[in-house]
Amino acid sequence: MTEHMTNLRVKLPATCIILEVIIIILFGTLVEYDDNTNAKLWHEELANKSNYENEFYFRYPSFQDVHVMIFIGFGFLMTFLQRYGFSSVGFNFLIAAFALQWATLMQGFFHGMHGGKIHIGVESMINADFCTGSVLISFGAVLGKTSPVQLLVMAVFEVTLFAVNEFILLTLLGARDAGGSMTIHTFGAYFGLVVARVLYRPQLEKSKEKNCSVYHSDLFAMIGTIYLWMFWPSFNSAITAQGDDQHRTAMNTYYSLAACTLATYGFSALVSHEGKLDMVHIQNAALAGGVAVGTAGEMMLTPFGSMIVGFLAGTISTLGFKYLSPILEDKLRIQDTCGVHNLHGMPGVLGAIVGAITAAAATREIYGDGLADVFPDVASDTVTASAQGVRQAISLAVTLGIALLGELLWVSF
Amino acid sequence: MTEHMTNLRVKLPATCIILEVIIIILFGTLVEYDDNTNAKLWHEELANKSNYENEFYFRYPSFQDVHVMIFIGFGFLMTFLQRYGFSSVGFNFLIAAFALQWATLMQGFFHGMHGGKIHIGVESMINADFCTGSVLISFGAVLGKTSPVQLLVMAVFEVTLFAVNEFILLTLLGARDAGGSMTIHTFGAYFGLVVARVLYRPQLEKSKEKNCSVYHSDLFAMIGTIYLWMFWPSFNSAITAQGDDQHRTAMNTYYSLAACTLATYGFSALVSHEGKLDMVHIQNAALAGGVAVGTAGEMMLTPFGSMIVGFLAGTISTLGFKYLSPILEDKLRIQDTCGVHNLHGMPGVLGAIVGAITAAAATREIYGDGLADVFPDVASDTVTASAQGVRQAISLAVTLGIALLGELLWVSF
Amino acid sequence: MTEHMTNLRVKLPATCIILEVIIIILFGTLVEYDDNTNAKLWHEELANKSNYENEFYFRYPSFQDVHVMIFIGFGFLMTFLQRYGFSSVGFNFLIAAFALQWATLMQGFFHGMHGGKIHIGVESMINADFCTGSVLISFGAVLGKTSPVQLLVMAVFEVTLFAVNEFILLTLLGARDAGGSMTIHTFGAYFGLVVARVLYRPQLEKSKEKNCSVYHSDLFAMIGTIYLWMFWPSFNSAITAQGDDQHRTAMNTYYSLAACTLATYGFSALVSHEGKLDMVHIQNAALAGGVAVGTAGEMMLTPFGSMIVGFLAGTISTLGFKYLSPILEDKLRIQDTCGVHNLHGMPGVLGAIVGAITAAAATREIYGDGLADVFPDVASDTVTASAQGVRQAISLAVTLGIALLGELLWVSF
Repeated sequence: MTEHMTNLRVKLPATCIILEVIIIILFGTLVEYDDNTNAKLWHEELANKSNYENEFYFRYPSFQDVHVMIFIGFGFLMTFLQRYGFSSVGFNFLIAAFALQWATLMQGFFHGMHGGKIHIGVESMINADFCTGSVLISFGAVLGKTSPVQLLVMAVFEVTLFAVNEFILLTLLGARDAGGSMTIHTFGAYFGLVVARVLYRPQLEKSKEKNCSVYHSDLFAMIGTIYLWMFWPSFNSAITAQGDDQHRTAMNTYYSLAACTLATYGFSALVSHEGKLDMVHIQNAALAGGVAVGTAGEMMLTPFGSMIVGFLAGTISTLGFKYLSPILEDKLRIQDTCGVHNLHGMPGVLGAIVGAITAAAATREIYGDGLADVFPDVASDTVTASAQGVRQAISLAVTLGIALLGELLWVSF
Repeated sequence: MTEHMTNLRVKLPATCIILEVIIIILFGTLVEYDDNTNAKLWHEELANKSNYENEFYFRYPSFQDVHVMIFIGFGFLMTFLQRYGFSSVGFNFLIAAFALQWATLMQGFFHGMHGGKIHIGVESMINADFCTGSVLISFGAVLGKTSPVQLLVMAVFEVTLFAVNEFILLTLLGARDAGGSMTIHTFGAYFGLVVARVLYRPQLEKSKEKNCSVYHSDLFAMIGTIYLWMFWPSFNSAITAQGDDQHRTAMNTYYSLAACTLATYGFSALVSHEGKLDMVHIQNAALAGGVAVGTAGEMMLTPFGSMIVGFLAGTISTLGFKYLSPILEDKLRIQDTCGVHNLHGMPGVLGAIVGAITAAAATREIYGDGLADVFPDVASDTVTASAQGVRQAISLAVTLGIALLGELLWVSF
Repeated sequence: MTEHMTNLRVKLPATCIILEVIIIILFGTLVEYDDNTNAKLWHEELANKSNYENEFYFRYPSFQDVHVMIFIGFGFLMTFLQRYGFSSVGFNFLIAAFALQWATLMQGFFHGMHGGKIHIGVESMINADFCTGSVLISFGAVLGKTSPVQLLVMAVFEVTLFAVNEFILLTLLGARDAGGSMTIHTFGAYFGLVVARVLYRPQLEKSKEKNCSVYHSDLFAMIGTIYLWMFWPSFNSAITAQGDDQHRTAMNTYYSLAACTLATYGFSALVSHEGKLDMVHIQNAALAGGVAVGTAGEMMLTPFGSMIVGFLAGTISTLGFKYLSPILEDKLRIQDTCGVHNLHGMPGVLGAIVGAITAAAATREIYGDGLADVFPDVASDTVTASAQGVRQAISLAVTLGIALLGELLWVSF
């Protein structure tokens, strides 16, 4: 990356240091401990609840699993592109470390301040990691086309837009999206594809050729793939309601991914040339099942429904790598370096649709009193189940619209 | 693997897709959420117990540790065989993703259905991962000799036999085997050795030569080794009774593995040729201490007892790699590719014997009221402690018998 | 390492086996289960407290994170030195497995015996891993200069001195150091530098040249770096008081590391030659933020304060690699192979100073009743906050003094 070389001595240091100083000043003026992390406040509450009810203890293990997905999972998954192996890990680390700080501020601002202050704790840390994941998805679409400085600038915009979109979906529209099929995956994928389109350079060789993977690169990439695969149940359940909701979400994701993996191997072999499994399919499409139950995972999807969704996601994703990516590149001039459209884009849209249908089918017979945890507005008769389904569908449209707006902002930059 | 090449376009897609479709149909007809994951039922129970008593919160972190051992641990451990590096990770992923679904059905069937339905939750997920581990142990014995299609067929048989054996040991015989010295390690190792014997091909070069490991392969293999080593305390304690039982099991395993590691380095250096540590010993034998306390880990083995068992296991395993494996290959024509007989076979039998002796020595003086958690039948005076010891010994014999039956089924296939 | 070769057949087996036998005998005579792991005792207590209050459930997940840092983090971080890649992982494994057993005995002895017995449980396992971390830091300073036998001997001494220093700081002086800025990092770094000085050999090429890192070595090293980075919040909070203390410590560490990472990339690019980021900086200096909040992390440092500390730590560490290490090597003849002075030494001292200042500034207005958890002696009016600050400062001086004593012991050996 020649830009990288030339910019390195001046632009990168300036960008890193100035951004960090701005963030530190904003934290100093706006951020304070929440009631669960403040020595003074928390102890007053302690009398009235068991230690266990401190969210720290039922969210922190999930937080660490998500953290591993963001830094090891995304970082190493992209090493399958041998020539960008180090960039993927090294830039992933820088961008993620920046994005989670910026996300704390942007999400805190939109999630509601407390007397002019942003309150932070383990849940805000999980949400910051989620937002960071969305930025890393976009990074996967532009890997190899940008300098770290451009990536940091992209992150500033994307995190802000992410927080706006999340606010509209979850607060204004009252949609449910605990695992982020819409807010994280669909948004990150289409935002990244727009940037990739803007950065299209015909002289860049086809990403198909860049996709040549070698023995060690494949093993490093499998580290990323398998960590994403293993911890996806924690990702989708990290911020769902305590108890049966987290339990059910983790289990739905576990079975969706298992079904997705067999579909991926099956269809990858079916469409393979020269009789070899395409490792890029295995490394990516086997994860689509986690994306596709991101919205419906906390709902009463049943293991049966989860496995059908996972099977479809793995199939769509594998066929996307084989047949759709070349079209995007040749016809639309979008070089989706890591194929995020196949792993996050289409499966994210599938997940949003599944979520809308599952929400519309919710009844008190099925959910019992648990309805209040999954669909509070339906439980309180604010909306009907079908209206909740419509909210979910509108949310998908809004997400796609805002992700595309990214282009205008980017170009205008 | 030439079979792999030729079968890839037809047999592999057909096998993956047909098996997955069958599994999805069976899940649709037989599987439902258990009380801890069902929105409706769980909330009714909630009134009567603290959230903490939801098994999800004290089993899920252990589940994720076990999950890492199955997918990263076993997957990368086998990369020490450089030429099979990718097969080990790629096939490990496919077989494991299949086996955990099939195991959910087979174990659910034998563990008792609820009104014709299999109830699933975090504990069934852990048990499915355990069964999967046993299949991956067998995979280690045949690595390089089979196509993925053959491995999937092997998994169908092995998972079924595993569930039968587990049912006989834990339900019919009332044996204790929380960490699976018998059900997982002994069963998986001897089942795999039988298959390896069936697949013996003289024209295959000696696995000794295949065992040449190189720099990067060794580092990848150490990722697998160290993850197995670190999380073994979670593996052995994942389904033990809550509280002191889980705590004690984790600690016994931790000290057994530490003692095992020093024994492995010591004896590996002692028997080394050209003055170099044999990395295959380090990568495998250092783990034998976890296998060998799989049965007795939950008992009052004491750290002292655990370390003696770990020391013995590391010694036996290291000497097995050096002296026994060549004999198995030359005399019995069993090419144990990864040496599972040294890591899982002999240490598993040792663990079963240690478990039988420790059980026979149990007294109420030592266990207090905790006796009911570890040996419910002894606590309820259904059997004496020595009778429990006999049950454990019989269970070892049954396990070896059923593992050997694998051959007949396989050959008849 | 020629010594390694010649010593291998005799000294290494003898050392490993004799040390392990001694340890097993000592465990047999001195060690027993604590009340939380003993089947008999724990159940009597159970009636009076909720299961959740069993420390196992709020410490074990942190323990496993720390365990990953010790075995994967330290083990793979050092692989950036390509030619020592395997030694770093293989010796790290051996030394750590020994050190955690020896540490259990030494720390148990100094932390107070119960009727002549050392009681062990998850907290003692965490403390043993902490002590092991200190030994591995010293290992980083002498990597490539010693045989495994010398390293084991070093570990015997260092663990013993570590326990003495820890006893003086935490028990005699009443200092606070939950994350070990002083006890683990400062002690381990300066102890190791002393040993490196003793082992100086002019004929060894400059470590600068050994620092040449290559593509795959960098990716392996990043596995170590990222695991240390991700789990540092668990490390610093592993033994802090339950509830808001653990929560706050984890969060302070998370933001300190994020700020540290941007400072590291910024200053590394600023001082880079031939326009490339120095991967050694990224792999090491980005972690200094965790070291520097090791003491103050549990205090009301605020996210703002944590980020300033992290930013300073990353800056000092990066500049140390660039400008100070060559001076240490040329002038003081200390070949600090992995640059532990930059990652653990200076940031550890910074952390100790930050801890002293933060302690001196503690008031009941800020901490409320939480003061009793963080500064029990201040809460009980045994000392004033400023006196607590003085205790912290004295503790730093004591730690440096005892670490330097290591030389005398070593030379006299």
